[in-house]
Amino acid sequence: MTHPLFAQHAETLNRALAAIEDRGYWTPFNESPSPRVYGETANADGESAFKSYLNKPFELDQPGTGQVGHERSPFGFDLGIRYPSADPDTLFPAVAAAQEGWRRAGPEAWVGVSLEILARLNRASFEIAYSVMHTTGQAFMMAFQAGGPHAQDRGLEAVAYAWDQMRRVPGSAYWEKPQGKHPSLAMEKRFTVVPRGIGLVLGCCTFPTWNGYPGLFADLATGNAVVVKPHPGAILPLAITVRIAREVLREAGFDPNVVTLFATDPNDGSIVQSLAQRPDVKLIDFTGSTANGEWLESHALQAQVYTEKAGVNQIVIDSVDDLKGASRNIAFSLGLYSGQMCTAPQNIYVPRDGIATPDGRLSFDEVAQAIAEGVRKLCGDPAKAVELLGAIQNDGVADRIDRARALGKVLVDSQSLTHPAFENARVLTPLLVQLDARTDASKFSDEWFGPIAFVIATDSTQQSLDLAGRLAATRGALTMSVYSTDEAVLAAAEEASLRGGVALSINLTGGVFVNQSAAFSDFHGTGANPAANAALADAAFVANRFRVVQSRRHVPPRETTAA
Amino acid sequence: MTHPLFAQHAETLNRALAAIEDRGYWTPFNESPSPRVYGETANADGESAFKSYLNKPFELDQPGTGQVGHERSPFGFDLGIRYPSADPDTLFPAVAAAQEGWRRAGPEAWVGVSLEILARLNRASFEIAYSVMHTTGQAFMMAFQAGGPHAQDRGLEAVAYAWDQMRRVPGSAYWEKPQGKHPSLAMEKRFTVVPRGIGLVLGCCTFPTWNGYPGLFADLATGNAVVVKPHPGAILPLAITVRIAREVLREAGFDPNVVTLFATDPNDGSIVQSLAQRPDVKLIDFTGSTANGEWLESHALQAQVYTEKAGVNQIVIDSVDDLKGASRNIAFSLGLYSGQMCTAPQNIYVPRDGIATPDGRLSFDEVAQAIAEGVRKLCGDPAKAVELLGAIQNDGVADRIDRARALGKVLVDSQSLTHPAFENARVLTPLLVQLDARTDASKFSDEWFGPIAFVIATDSTQQSLDLAGRLAATRGALTMSVYSTDEAVLAAAEEASLRGGVALSINLTGGVFVNQSAAFSDFHGTGANPAANAALADAAFVANRFRVVQSRRHVPPRETTAA
Repeated sequence: MTHPLFAQHAETLNRALAAIEDRGYWTPFNESPSPRVYGETANADGESAFKSYLNKPFELDQPGTGQVGHERSPFGFDLGIRYPSADPDTLFPAVAAAQEGWRRAGPEAWVGVSLEILARLNRASFEIAYSVMHTTGQAFMMAFQAGGPHAQDRGLEAVAYAWDQMRRVPGSAYWEKPQGKHPSLAMEKRFTVVPRGIGLVLGCCTFPTWNGYPGLFADLATGNAVVVKPHPGAILPLAITVRIAREVLREAGFDPNVVTLFATDPNDGSIVQSLAQRPDVKLIDFTGSTANGEWLESHALQAQVYTEKAGVNQIVIDSVDDLKGASRNIAFSLGLYSGQMCTAPQNIYVPRDGIATPDGRLSFDEVAQAIAEGVRKLCGDPAKAVELLGAIQNDGVADRIDRARALGKVLVDSQSLTHPAFENARVLTPLLVQLDARTDASKFSDEWFGPIAFVIATDSTQQSLDLAGRLAATRGALTMSVYSTDEAVLAAAEEASLRGGVALSINLTGGVFVNQSAAFSDFHGTGANPAANAALADAAFVANRFRVVQSRRHVPPRETTAA
Repeated sequence: MTHPLFAQHAETLNRALAAIEDRGYWTPFNESPSPRVYGETANADGESAFKSYLNKPFELDQPGTGQVGHERSPFGFDLGIRYPSADPDTLFPAVAAAQEGWRRAGPEAWVGVSLEILARLNRASFEIAYSVMHTTGQAFMMAFQAGGPHAQDRGLEAVAYAWDQMRRVPGSAYWEKPQGKHPSLAMEKRFTVVPRGIGLVLGCCTFPTWNGYPGLFADLATGNAVVVKPHPGAILPLAITVRIAREVLREAGFDPNVVTLFATDPNDGSIVQSLAQRPDVKLIDFTGSTANGEWLESHALQAQVYTEKAGVNQIVIDSVDDLKGASRNIAFSLGLYSGQMCTAPQNIYVPRDGIATPDGRLSFDEVAQAIAEGVRKLCGDPAKAVELLGAIQNDGVADRIDRARALGKVLVDSQSLTHPAFENARVLTPLLVQLDARTDASKFSDEWFGPIAFVIATDSTQQSLDLAGRLAATRGALTMSVYSTDEAVLAAAEEASLRGGVALSINLTGGVFVNQSAAFSDFHGTGANPAANAALADAAFVANRFRVVQSRRHVPPRETTAA
């Protein structure tokens, strides 16, 4: 019998399945925070829900021992929320016990429950938006879109991929092998999808839901229990998520410990290492630094480990039809959430002898100045700028800007802005520094996470593309962008992107930015370079999260009709 | 344009795709070595082709430096074949160069060439059968079936899974995002399947083709180049395979170095370790010992590593309808290729207070003796027995039998038989030893590879099932078998097999044996216990062997018809 939640969400699932195959535009979760979409009081209700969490214990009825939590809004105030802390040796056995009943429920229940959780998360989009805003530093609009509907899209995408793979495994099969003149050998076979066990989702402090949901829902939809360990700087969005997941699980008759929260205080490195190496942890999803990601890949050998790490995103400028559009688009990409996106560009390569435009050749300096001017314009009106820039998540980013200033000639300096609504917000505009490929490779070959970008003089577009492909392949990259009016250059750029294993955007001058990646259509990451060992989402992201166990027994051969 | 080899084999591919979804009986490769199937002279031609290789250099036009090879037939003679040896630092750059053109060819070419190689391997089944026989020690019939058509089936299965996943990635997509009153944002996206790079296939000495083809063809069909490193004791079957693959590649216009042989002399451990850690090796498929498999899993971190390792296969006897059929079936399973199958049973659990049968209760001793008698009958006529037992692949197996004799009461001793056709063949019959679950767990909890099995007294069927599930989960297992007339026990056995992550066979008393695993229907291994980290084959086995790289650019929004 079809699980009622599976039946209830069947249409959404079917449309998602169609979307991941044709990869056109589709979403069931509206990205507009408009009252016409989410209701007249949705925004106010969400904000007051967020405020109701502040300065008190977060209620979550799971095995716990004490209290943790020291979150501070990048907009300048302490959240003061205390979360239940857990002793792993108490929590994990409770999770394992919950996992048993969950495993038995089977794929339709796993998928149905996952889809219901996503639907409820969508209804909580405002509450989650404010919690994302005040942990990550994202401005409200991005916090709503990326933290709410877009994150839900990525979760749904993972569920769709999971179901798409599981549905290919038949529940049973009839096998009949002819034996010449003797009666056939006939068997009935049963195939059972079994989860791997317990998944550990390690959240990040910039996109806790967007980067956390794919692993969470890929695990859940394939029958695994999930322990969610948020970054200590961004617990609330995932704590709300876990609470909603537990509500749905309980209502559907499951032990809510199928999804649990493992909140921590800052500097939780040794705790994470010990969790990640538990024999009962079979799946790990991680977004964060290269050092931590590589540690997991080489130490958590008992688990399937999915990592998204650092990378160097690059833009190659060869020639442009519309320098103004290109500069505006690039500047916007640099400013969006102050470059604190794993997809934000860092290295902008421009030939030292300039580029072709419809108005004739422009020198390197003119191109660099056009981009610099784009950045200046973007930040010219602080009240508008903060709605794009958001706030700086942590002091590490601010310190990095200081260090980057010394790398070369400063084209646009980073400035501190005063947020009109939050006087203590940490707001810093992008820093743009000029470098040279001949002498500065060591400076631009690593990620400078934050609002830091380089305009780099190269000998030629060919050198730019070589650099972009090679750095992507060796240091990792999630995005690459090229501007050219020459199809031969665009073909060479595609080839460089294939060598670098990185997604390419071509001639973005309008309303699409290289940082943006649309669920169901754009693969986020490829798994083909060091920035990530998996893509969000594809078959490879889900196929190892479950296994198939079969049984077989003889049955009488079926009567076959005469030929 | 469809690649001609893809078009040529499209029907086979389509039938394979249907087979992996419905998982009934199907194969395009006839398992009968009958002249009516393969031609009147096929057997004689194959034998003389095999003999023509003996005592001379094996011709293979690939980058080489010297000669290696010290194979000896378990039937008692040196093969005397010398293979080209390779300097990795010469070979791998040549492979990488070949890989470039192969990558560009795209999925239809990869799959078409793979299918053509399989078709040619099928035509070489007799030649390969003799080469498998005289490297592994398999008797001719098994060498033909498992080394020829069944191995080809497993290769084809991997190709089908690879295509099934790759075909879900559209070559291009049109994406149009509404912008309210503004014109839509519209983009064209291209998606390119890219291989990981170079795959390394590490062959084993018992089933070089059956265990080697899945990884080889999964790699090749997803656009990777493949370096085939056979076990030094069983080079010839894979050398022939590589030569055929190279012929097809060359004829199809590709650099034949897409598939190369890396032959070695015995004691090649340090060479393998250095190959496996090369940065350009991105995929490794291994069948062999747990120690070597775990080394690869923990050291070859730059690669996706697929391993099949040791396990403890188990039979639980609770009650039987047909003791004679059960005993005969079990004895056959123990004798088949002298227990040198990764799927051969080792531990046979029988309650110490006996079992129920239609003829009343039988004591533990009576059950043990029935199985012992089955083994004795199997080996009663040496001329017939050797066609089942084959020969012992290496002295390590013979030594192990000697050690196992001392473990407990010997129910049937292992005996040396004289092969009527090969006087120096190393033929040893199965050893059956009685143990007790109360005292002997340390003796039967590890794999005793070879013709060694234990009849183990347990307190109850429940203890038997607990043991079977637990040992499978902790020590690994590829097969589990149960005999019971009680559906409640069978349900408990299914549950134990799910906990152990191991395939279950129920009440085998006829012509299907627990050792046997049919391509397109039975998953070989599950990836859910330590015996293997992947199944042959499923989506998980292929999905990580390629990645998808995309590009996107704006296009004018398509005119939409009025609503």
